[in-house]
Amino acid sequence: MSNSTISAISTPFSDTASAVALPVLSADVRVPLRTGGEIAYAALDYAASAPVLSHVWADVAEFAPLYGSVHRGAGHLSLRATELFEHSRATVAAFLGCRPGDQVLFTRSTTDSLNLLAAALPPKTRVFVFESEHHAALLPWRRHAVTHLPVPGSPEESVRALDEALAGAPSGEPKLLCVTGASNVTGELWPVRELAAVAHRHGARVVLDAAQLAPHRRVNIAQLDVDWVAFSGHKLYAPFGAGVLAGRADWLRAAEPYLAGGGATRVVASRAGGGLAVEWVADEARHEAGSPNVIGCYAIASACRALSAAGFDALEAHESRLLGLLREGLARVPAVRELSLFGPGAPRVAVVSFTVAGWDSAEFARELSERYGIGVRAGLFCAQPLVRRLLGAQGPADGCAGPEQAVRVSFGAGTPEEHVTRLVRAVGELTA
Amino acid sequence: MSNSTISAISTPFSDTASAVALPVLSADVRVPLRTGGEIAYAALDYAASAPVLSHVWADVAEFAPLYGSVHRGAGHLSLRATELFEHSRATVAAFLGCRPGDQVLFTRSTTDSLNLLAAALPPKTRVFVFESEHHAALLPWRRHAVTHLPVPGSPEESVRALDEALAGAPSGEPKLLCVTGASNVTGELWPVRELAAVAHRHGARVVLDAAQLAPHRRVNIAQLDVDWVAFSGHKLYAPFGAGVLAGRADWLRAAEPYLAGGGATRVVASRAGGGLAVEWVADEARHEAGSPNVIGCYAIASACRALSAAGFDALEAHESRLLGLLREGLARVPAVRELSLFGPGAPRVAVVSFTVAGWDSAEFARELSERYGIGVRAGLFCAQPLVRRLLGAQGPADGCAGPEQAVRVSFGAGTPEEHVTRLVRAVGELTA
Repeated sequence: MSNSTISAISTPFSDTASAVALPVLSADVRVPLRTGGEIAYAALDYAASAPVLSHVWADVAEFAPLYGSVHRGAGHLSLRATELFEHSRATVAAFLGCRPGDQVLFTRSTTDSLNLLAAALPPKTRVFVFESEHHAALLPWRRHAVTHLPVPGSPEESVRALDEALAGAPSGEPKLLCVTGASNVTGELWPVRELAAVAHRHGARVVLDAAQLAPHRRVNIAQLDVDWVAFSGHKLYAPFGAGVLAGRADWLRAAEPYLAGGGATRVVASRAGGGLAVEWVADEARHEAGSPNVIGCYAIASACRALSAAGFDALEAHESRLLGLLREGLARVPAVRELSLFGPGAPRVAVVSFTVAGWDSAEFARELSERYGIGVRAGLFCAQPLVRRLLGAQGPADGCAGPEQAVRVSFGAGTPEEHVTRLVRAVGELTA
Repeated sequence: MSNSTISAISTPFSDTASAVALPVLSADVRVPLRTGGEIAYAALDYAASAPVLSHVWADVAEFAPLYGSVHRGAGHLSLRATELFEHSRATVAAFLGCRPGDQVLFTRSTTDSLNLLAAALPPKTRVFVFESEHHAALLPWRRHAVTHLPVPGSPEESVRALDEALAGAPSGEPKLLCVTGASNVTGELWPVRELAAVAHRHGARVVLDAAQLAPHRRVNIAQLDVDWVAFSGHKLYAPFGAGVLAGRADWLRAAEPYLAGGGATRVVASRAGGGLAVEWVADEARHEAGSPNVIGCYAIASACRALSAAGFDALEAHESRLLGLLREGLARVPAVRELSLFGPGAPRVAVVSFTVAGWDSAEFARELSERYGIGVRAGLFCAQPLVRRLLGAQGPADGCAGPEQAVRVSFGAGTPEEHVTRLVRAVGELTA
């Protein structure tokens, strides 16, 4: 539970092939092979959900016996849990480089964070979103006017397209851009700072979907100059049911509470003439009705501390080396075609999607699992318009099945080189 | 992770004073006293949040290294996590005695479950709710017409009042009663089956707020004949960020998805003329967008198994004995006045609220904590209209402070007799 334990984090192995940037719980898990025997599990689906960081687990395990009700009790453990909870909020604020006055709301996930923001937008807000976004960023704005921007061919094109769209939008209405920091399909980085500058020039606000970015790069809300950041604990090595929405307080304070219930109310009183008079609080609790998920929020704070202590330079160096091995290895397999928005040289995090000629993606992923003990994801990755576009598909297609899908490999701080080399070898063998 | 381990659950101590119905993690926690030294913590705030069951923790700890993405990956751990997640849903369905066709939705809490149901009500639904409810049951219906029923003086009066209100309501419009199973202030049981019968006679549906009932009594959705049940993991000894809404599927299937995002969509496709065509799934995932909180949901299922294995008869016998000791002990303290809706003989779960003459409730709770190591709650318990009424307060008052508040003692399966006798002794000493 103390910050001091974090400073002891270091690479546990000196051997490069087995070195990780931060240890994870799943490291010793062995899984059965269809071909007989078993093998150490290679978790290469971090973009869906990352394994639990060992340090996060140690913090959760230390706290679990001390668990108490937050904001609600007078006992020692309640006071301690409340302190831990609010300290977790402060830890996340520091992790994100929040500005004075920013709020850090604990939600259940990025999806929930963006749905919360959608519910808090002022009336008549117009939302701008690229069609290349994850469904969690594409769809929450269903009760607002939405301008869907086409999938851009380059970062520069995305900035130009936003500029034009905002220039053509009616002035005087609130405007919001929702944009990802790193594509959940290709891992490619989006020009967040440039997009935010254009948005602000037109009086629009920006929410950054950092679900895929936060585990891999330092996300600084002030430096990026975005208005809000959303991310998920389960992609940040802390899968205990919590997520974050952090940023400007004004729209959040002015909005109807996201959930109605205890904790969000200051006064609830019977009116003399019948009915109820309700006063809501204005701080973070306004949108956090119900008992907070203190273990989940503490786990996120623990992950923030562990990642910060390891240092994003070190994390990025570890991932970049493995990403190079992966992409070079896949490039040598003739049947493999890597999906890309912005071209092969574009900067990216450790997320790579590809097709394999002659293979159904689900079948290919099953072979990787059953013959090599490798966990990846196959499908459209909850970004159907983007993946269909990258696959060259024409028109709508069924999202649940069908051959026009892809395989995604993704990894992070807990991944040793051996997982990546095993994957490259497996892809070669399966397509030989 | 196996069911077989649960059958080994038994009372770990033979000494009655230290016997518990089920062991909890906090049993060995010691806290400092203002008077010097330290003492074993007496958690008497179960109604806010219960400690983690040792069996739940063992299951969570066994699963954590095996954690994988649910519904999203092709790897061995993803398939296993998905199986565990859907098995958890089935476990909860069995725990609640769900009918064929009922859905079990995983939410974050009772508050979230009731907000979800509120968002899923058909247009023009009128909601009936007693003013004695917890804010989580009182307030989520803010976008619907609500009939607030006055706090009843007896269970029979509640049934009569509902009958009259429903008889006077316009026919042809959907109607919903939201009612608690056990008061979070007084612990008193509500006549759920009778209220449901009256509601159904008038064509109204019923959602049961079982947050306080489920940890203490067998809740059987078919036997009670309610349409939905909501409860929280954190009051059911599984505080990992998950809750449940279970019951009839029709309104849920017909409603707009609660959250918009991945997992809830079947097809998302660009329309030829611009914009997006979206098809949502109809099963539980419709309202569970985003990666599920598999650890939290599995923890709830683990608690359901542990409580069922211990048996609600045994749990109730344990609690009833301690509840008798508590109430008899408090009745001997002249300064104490127990709050009650339905009178001292009414059946109730292990939740008791009281005032102490001459004491501010927060001050009294602080003394219990700092001098006796006892954790209780002071205040209005997120049921402000009810508590003010029971206190005899006139008109609205500030919910956050003020002397017109109460002390609440609540406990459960992990409570030994010594915690209760310590509380009774402390109340006697503090008021002597």
